[in-house]
Amino acid sequence: MYAPGSIKRQKTTREATRSAESSSENFHGIGRVEYKSDASYNIEENLYYRYYNASERIHGRPMEEWLRPSVFLGQAFTPGLVQRPWCEDGTSLDSYKKSIRAMFELCIKLGIKYWSGYDKNIAPEGDNFDENQSNFDQMVDLINEYQQKTGVKPLWIGVDLKTHSRYKNGAATSTDANIVTYAGYQVKKALDVAHKLNAECFLFNGEQEGYESIINTDLAKEMKHYSRFLKMIVEQRDRIGYRGQLLIQTNHENLQKNRYNFDLYSNLALLKHYNYDRYFKVNVKAGHDFFMANAYGSVGCIDIKNNDLMDVTKASLLLRTVIESGGVAPGGLTFYLPNHNAYFEAKDLAVAFVTSIDSFAKALRLAVKLVNDVQINKNIQMRYLSFASGWGAKFTGSDASFEDCEELCKKFQETNTNLNTNASRSEHWSAVLTRYIEAPLK
Amino acid sequence: MYAPGSIKRQKTTREATRSAESSSENFHGIGRVEYKSDASYNIEENLYYRYYNASERIHGRPMEEWLRPSVFLGQAFTPGLVQRPWCEDGTSLDSYKKSIRAMFELCIKLGIKYWSGYDKNIAPEGDNFDENQSNFDQMVDLINEYQQKTGVKPLWIGVDLKTHSRYKNGAATSTDANIVTYAGYQVKKALDVAHKLNAECFLFNGEQEGYESIINTDLAKEMKHYSRFLKMIVEQRDRIGYRGQLLIQTNHENLQKNRYNFDLYSNLALLKHYNYDRYFKVNVKAGHDFFMANAYGSVGCIDIKNNDLMDVTKASLLLRTVIESGGVAPGGLTFYLPNHNAYFEAKDLAVAFVTSIDSFAKALRLAVKLVNDVQINKNIQMRYLSFASGWGAKFTGSDASFEDCEELCKKFQETNTNLNTNASRSEHWSAVLTRYIEAPLK
Amino acid sequence: MYAPGSIKRQKTTREATRSAESSSENFHGIGRVEYKSDASYNIEENLYYRYYNASERIHGRPMEEWLRPSVFLGQAFTPGLVQRPWCEDGTSLDSYKKSIRAMFELCIKLGIKYWSGYDKNIAPEGDNFDENQSNFDQMVDLINEYQQKTGVKPLWIGVDLKTHSRYKNGAATSTDANIVTYAGYQVKKALDVAHKLNAECFLFNGEQEGYESIINTDLAKEMKHYSRFLKMIVEQRDRIGYRGQLLIQTNHENLQKNRYNFDLYSNLALLKHYNYDRYFKVNVKAGHDFFMANAYGSVGCIDIKNNDLMDVTKASLLLRTVIESGGVAPGGLTFYLPNHNAYFEAKDLAVAFVTSIDSFAKALRLAVKLVNDVQINKNIQMRYLSFASGWGAKFTGSDASFEDCEELCKKFQETNTNLNTNASRSEHWSAVLTRYIEAPLK
Amino acid sequence: MYAPGSIKRQKTTREATRSAESSSENFHGIGRVEYKSDASYNIEENLYYRYYNASERIHGRPMEEWLRPSVFLGQAFTPGLVQRPWCEDGTSLDSYKKSIRAMFELCIKLGIKYWSGYDKNIAPEGDNFDENQSNFDQMVDLINEYQQKTGVKPLWIGVDLKTHSRYKNGAATSTDANIVTYAGYQVKKALDVAHKLNAECFLFNGEQEGYESIINTDLAKEMKHYSRFLKMIVEQRDRIGYRGQLLIQTNHENLQKNRYNFDLYSNLALLKHYNYDRYFKVNVKAGHDFFMANAYGSVGCIDIKNNDLMDVTKASLLLRTVIESGGVAPGGLTFYLPNHNAYFEAKDLAVAFVTSIDSFAKALRLAVKLVNDVQINKNIQMRYLSFASGWGAKFTGSDASFEDCEELCKKFQETNTNLNTNASRSEHWSAVLTRYIEAPLK
Repeated sequence: MYAPGSIKRQKTTREATRSAESSSENFHGIGRVEYKSDASYNIEENLYYRYYNASERIHGRPMEEWLRPSVFLGQAFTPGLVQRPWCEDGTSLDSYKKSIRAMFELCIKLGIKYWSGYDKNIAPEGDNFDENQSNFDQMVDLINEYQQKTGVKPLWIGVDLKTHSRYKNGAATSTDANIVTYAGYQVKKALDVAHKLNAECFLFNGEQEGYESIINTDLAKEMKHYSRFLKMIVEQRDRIGYRGQLLIQTNHENLQKNRYNFDLYSNLALLKHYNYDRYFKVNVKAGHDFFMANAYGSVGCIDIKNNDLMDVTKASLLLRTVIESGGVAPGGLTFYLPNHNAYFEAKDLAVAFVTSIDSFAKALRLAVKLVNDVQINKNIQMRYLSFASGWGAKFTGSDASFEDCEELCKKFQETNTNLNTNASRSEHWSAVLTRYIEAPLK
Repeated sequence: MYAPGSIKRQKTTREATRSAESSSENFHGIGRVEYKSDASYNIEENLYYRYYNASERIHGRPMEEWLRPSVFLGQAFTPGLVQRPWCEDGTSLDSYKKSIRAMFELCIKLGIKYWSGYDKNIAPEGDNFDENQSNFDQMVDLINEYQQKTGVKPLWIGVDLKTHSRYKNGAATSTDANIVTYAGYQVKKALDVAHKLNAECFLFNGEQEGYESIINTDLAKEMKHYSRFLKMIVEQRDRIGYRGQLLIQTNHENLQKNRYNFDLYSNLALLKHYNYDRYFKVNVKAGHDFFMANAYGSVGCIDIKNNDLMDVTKASLLLRTVIESGGVAPGGLTFYLPNHNAYFEAKDLAVAFVTSIDSFAKALRLAVKLVNDVQINKNIQMRYLSFASGWGAKFTGSDASFEDCEELCKKFQETNTNLNTNASRSEHWSAVLTRYIEAPLK
Repeated sequence: MYAPGSIKRQKTTREATRSAESSSENFHGIGRVEYKSDASYNIEENLYYRYYNASERIHGRPMEEWLRPSVFLGQAFTPGLVQRPWCEDGTSLDSYKKSIRAMFELCIKLGIKYWSGYDKNIAPEGDNFDENQSNFDQMVDLINEYQQKTGVKPLWIGVDLKTHSRYKNGAATSTDANIVTYAGYQVKKALDVAHKLNAECFLFNGEQEGYESIINTDLAKEMKHYSRFLKMIVEQRDRIGYRGQLLIQTNHENLQKNRYNFDLYSNLALLKHYNYDRYFKVNVKAGHDFFMANAYGSVGCIDIKNNDLMDVTKASLLLRTVIESGGVAPGGLTFYLPNHNAYFEAKDLAVAFVTSIDSFAKALRLAVKLVNDVQINKNIQMRYLSFASGWGAKFTGSDASFEDCEELCKKFQETNTNLNTNASRSEHWSAVLTRYIEAPLK
Repeated sequence: MYAPGSIKRQKTTREATRSAESSSENFHGIGRVEYKSDASYNIEENLYYRYYNASERIHGRPMEEWLRPSVFLGQAFTPGLVQRPWCEDGTSLDSYKKSIRAMFELCIKLGIKYWSGYDKNIAPEGDNFDENQSNFDQMVDLINEYQQKTGVKPLWIGVDLKTHSRYKNGAATSTDANIVTYAGYQVKKALDVAHKLNAECFLFNGEQEGYESIINTDLAKEMKHYSRFLKMIVEQRDRIGYRGQLLIQTNHENLQKNRYNFDLYSNLALLKHYNYDRYFKVNVKAGHDFFMANAYGSVGCIDIKNNDLMDVTKASLLLRTVIESGGVAPGGLTFYLPNHNAYFEAKDLAVAFVTSIDSFAKALRLAVKLVNDVQINKNIQMRYLSFASGWGAKFTGSDASFEDCEELCKKFQETNTNLNTNASRSEHWSAVLTRYIEAPLK
């Protein structure tokens, strides 16, 4: 009845919303979240966007195209040990179905076009091959039905090779060929799911690859296996004709020691060593890691987690760079909510998403101002002025040598040049940014 | 009077020792530290090596060739705020001379052929260009004299672009061309010193490269400058005909945020991104970082610091890999002692070096046993047995695909294969290693 | 000419300002920073307070009485390795004088009544006893003169027993009675300074107390010495009739291992063990540590550092508790600026202080709103509603036992009570707070 | 058939062993682990103690009385997500029974008299009150039967108020009286279990007590509840006439923020604030925390985990202090093995316990040598010599004042006393300890 991509037809979306709002609604009393720039700051008006106006064009694109926000399926919707408002009964397939239904209801109400999730968030692993195939097939069919109705689709589908206890000693780098085989099958299945659900990206998470004890480990062999496994992901993607961007997950810290890849830099070293940075980009956090990944041309997708969810200052600087780099498509921003793994109420989850997305929408509006701010841009140019001409320009080019440096330092002595008074003026610019963010947006 | 490399002529060395032991000896009452495998465990016999027999060949090389130990000039010998046994008078050139003299006395008494240090450990920065040139020239002449007499030479000479307050906002990536220029001059001078002193390696330390605040930083431009600066190091080395190995320093943690390179992985990402891993290898710590750097073919030199100084187990596993990789020459092991920055007594410093070097000598003997241990090597092979033939071998080659994995997983169902019982057996091998290390060596 | 406490006489202060603005002014072109709530957000208007109106009464007190802000003398004004805008000549007494002068100029221009600093920030340690006495006496005279003129006084004077290399192995717990003696003398001198300068508080910093190696340490003896030393501080304070509040410094992490006290909790354990929490309160950071110290009735003074300097949300919650606890007098808030130890420009330092103090002034206004917010306060009451009557009230009192709990749990079974759906609703309240802080203040 | 405490009757134990070794033995092919000081270092002889001779008296007590080793029931034996060698079928009561049986088999074979565990390790929580009561009753009966047969008993029984998702927002400090009630019931039940099983100690673990967000938290009220809850533990213990030592768990880091107690110091602050250090001692890790807890008279029991399991040096220093403090009874040492949460093989678990216990037995023998070592003890005395008489002794007493210190410092000037050359000589003593530990024990 509903055509794919129907989200563009406003009316159809409303119909879908209405349909989803039927008797057994999960987010009771919440309608489609509207943009209302003059919404009051009262608790009652928590369910309006004050900054996020999805279709409003700023800096040449709709806001939703710059942000490409996605709802993470994991924390909030995966059945398991912690009870959810929409499913009480453990990890049955039925619970997964209820969760998926709740997630689509949330996406529609938030007006968000993307969701993201790992295979394990989509369906429970079956007790055997047939059951597993069946679980995923049923869930993919159901999700496809929701996607057809709503136009909502995955930003990324990931494969989780870290949680199951069989992977405790590695998946791609297990010493047991059977486990590597199962991991390979799991990736194949997840790629199929990504393909069928038309996911923009496919995410590989290799957090468990590493060793327990070097004494009985052949590191060179394991690295060779790992490289082979990553290559097989590329090959399988091509074989099935999937066109999504490949991603690899980066984390902030190496909590588990002796891993082959964990943070941004160990992943970049791995990808660059095997020349796989052609195929894989990284899923990276906001902040310094993002700026570095961007400098290396490797940003695929951005994780918004924990304190970053509400940090307008950090988000503004992130989005300034996103804008200057022309956006992060086909990736986007994945919002990991709630910010804990305890029980939560459905309405509060909606409020949390509204508040976080709105923080980033505010940040986007600020970022556009930053990008266009003549004073700030001029300041940056001025900071590097000494490289714009003369010796500085020679250095930036490739004519200069350290011999020249020596000659110049001799002259510094004659001219009594003080080299100890170069201030970064970070206090000044931090104050500018603080006032900037506090100023009314219009 | 003394020919270079005279250390090989035993008698000459003794003469040198005697000469250094003249009236104003620093390590009073300590002679040349001898190898005495049956030295008692009493405090009185702390100044014998029980395992380190420099010229003894094991596994095809003299022990000193496997270990290539070097005395770090910094902590123990650089004049400054903390008083030293050999110099009381601040940071005068005379203090530096006394320190250098003490260091050579220690090297000779320890029977160690290498020392290592940064430019700032060798001479105080002058108040102006001429004074700086003069300081380094005087010190290099003095050191060369000691080197001629003793045959002791630098394992590495480094350039310190992090300590001086002028580099607080970066050296190679400063926004002030004058500061970049001074940094370039400093590198040139340090390369000259390395060349004149015939250092095996030259170490660059870029710990301060980064930004204070992204708001007024042009990251792309700074990375371009950084890349240019690293290239200029290579060019300058070639210009002066220096043949030492270029190294870059890696640290364990990113204590100062927003740095371009800090730990092993961020350095590897940097070097690989610009294709400079051809020129630079890394100075790396023992442990996991070393194993990873080795897997990436990037080990240049090894820092032995803090808890690693006495950890025979960790050292044995390190040296096993060193042996299997054919050694770390032209790099080696740098011992950072003492393990604090408070006052110490001269004799205790000697004891600390003897104990640490001896721990590594013991570890080397154990490592040779490990390398040759049929049972352990067989065990490693057995762990990967499932990749030796059949499907596993196909996977290791390039014929396999994830489609094959799916087919096999179907069969696992039929054969009821348990994938949850793959033990790393780290308890077993940890116990083996514990007993191994405890067993008498002969 | 000027009476003490003259800051209250507006005219006199202006005269003082003018006098300080004489020929060799340090903060050129900066006058007294005014309160201008409608100051624009332009860079040009960075030197106005938009929220801080020192004498404005809110919630029953002048803003300056709630905040009691103080300028930290250390980072910005202590002569040393990093050059300052106001002194180039190393650590001479003259440099200290110039720095003190600059600090008072800043306090007056900021309209701040307090400064804070350690003994080592006030005067350089002399090469011998007489010189040391003379250094401090000269500086105290000079500072007293400034204080008379301006009415600005110390929030706290501290004794630094951690920086000098002689204390590397402990001050109060050194194994060398001579070093303990010198530490005792240093405390005596710092107490004298605090007394003469009429400091509100006296801060002891015991960061170096601990041991290097347990093998040659008599821990019980050292703890006894430590306890004795702390008691002597109390005794000396009483002897000289000083009435300031004693404080002990807490840090965030135990970067140096094997310390007796480092963070809030190890300090509380120490003080409570010896029953010295009667005498000493703690100098604590914003955030969780502050809330815990407050719950234990131990807050003396609050350090505002690093990211806390601009975090309005964190500051609002801090100040809400400050208000509810009736203020932190005689302590206050110490602002540690700049946020780095590189060179900075004088004007930027002023901007940084204005921005930070203004962030806390905004936070104070928000905090008052929070304290008076009926909805939020009601919500808190409602969260604990189950303890207001019946069984909950019985539990809160002292009549209940775990036997009762067992009885009740039996009944839960009958009533089929779900114990798994207790949500903290932190998402909701985080959103409320976010909107709260974003709402216009008037 | 078997009398209680029958472990003392050697023969009976052997019978028990034989009985446990019946058809369905878990630790196949492993008999009672014997003491064999000359066991070879081969892999084949991994199942002998080379140092641990339980009944051998050293320093006046049997080795087993000094060490009081206990097998932790948790990691190795609790049924759950990770498969175990002895139970495949999830978290059924039958799995718990098989695990308990395996644990007693291990204790007997190791010759260990204690085990330790939390309530959740002993029985699965029932779906309702009756089922829960029944689960625990059945398990306690079974365990009691094994205890009767073997003489093995609990070192500690703990209550786990952190793992279940209902406690995510606190147990004793939940805002929901029902949850506090359930927590109270759980403690009551665990105390009953401890009493019935005659556990030496009872361990409370309050890791989840804290808040998610301060904005809706009444910290004072929660602390009052917490204090009340801790008091109720004491009252309940007295009511049932249980005589075991109460313990509170300390962890190393505050991984989850905003907790009321987490590490040693925050627990000590809590206990001392409410004057509960009379009732509760701490469960503490080896290393600095242990030495501090010992100095505060609060050591209850010692956790041996992770790297500490094999660290003979650390263990020797720990046990030296244990000996000097007269032992840790009624507490002891809890060995947490295996060192990971992946699948393991039964035999390897036994090997891991043998190796760890043997490391501590070796350490105990070394510790006795350390305690009796004239040279080392004399050295410690000598380090504090300056406090043995004269001024130092006056300082140690209570006659001295900081005025005296000032007088003495004046004299230091006259005598030109150098205060900058006090060396801790940690290099020397670290070398002594290294040699000490390496020397043959006999």
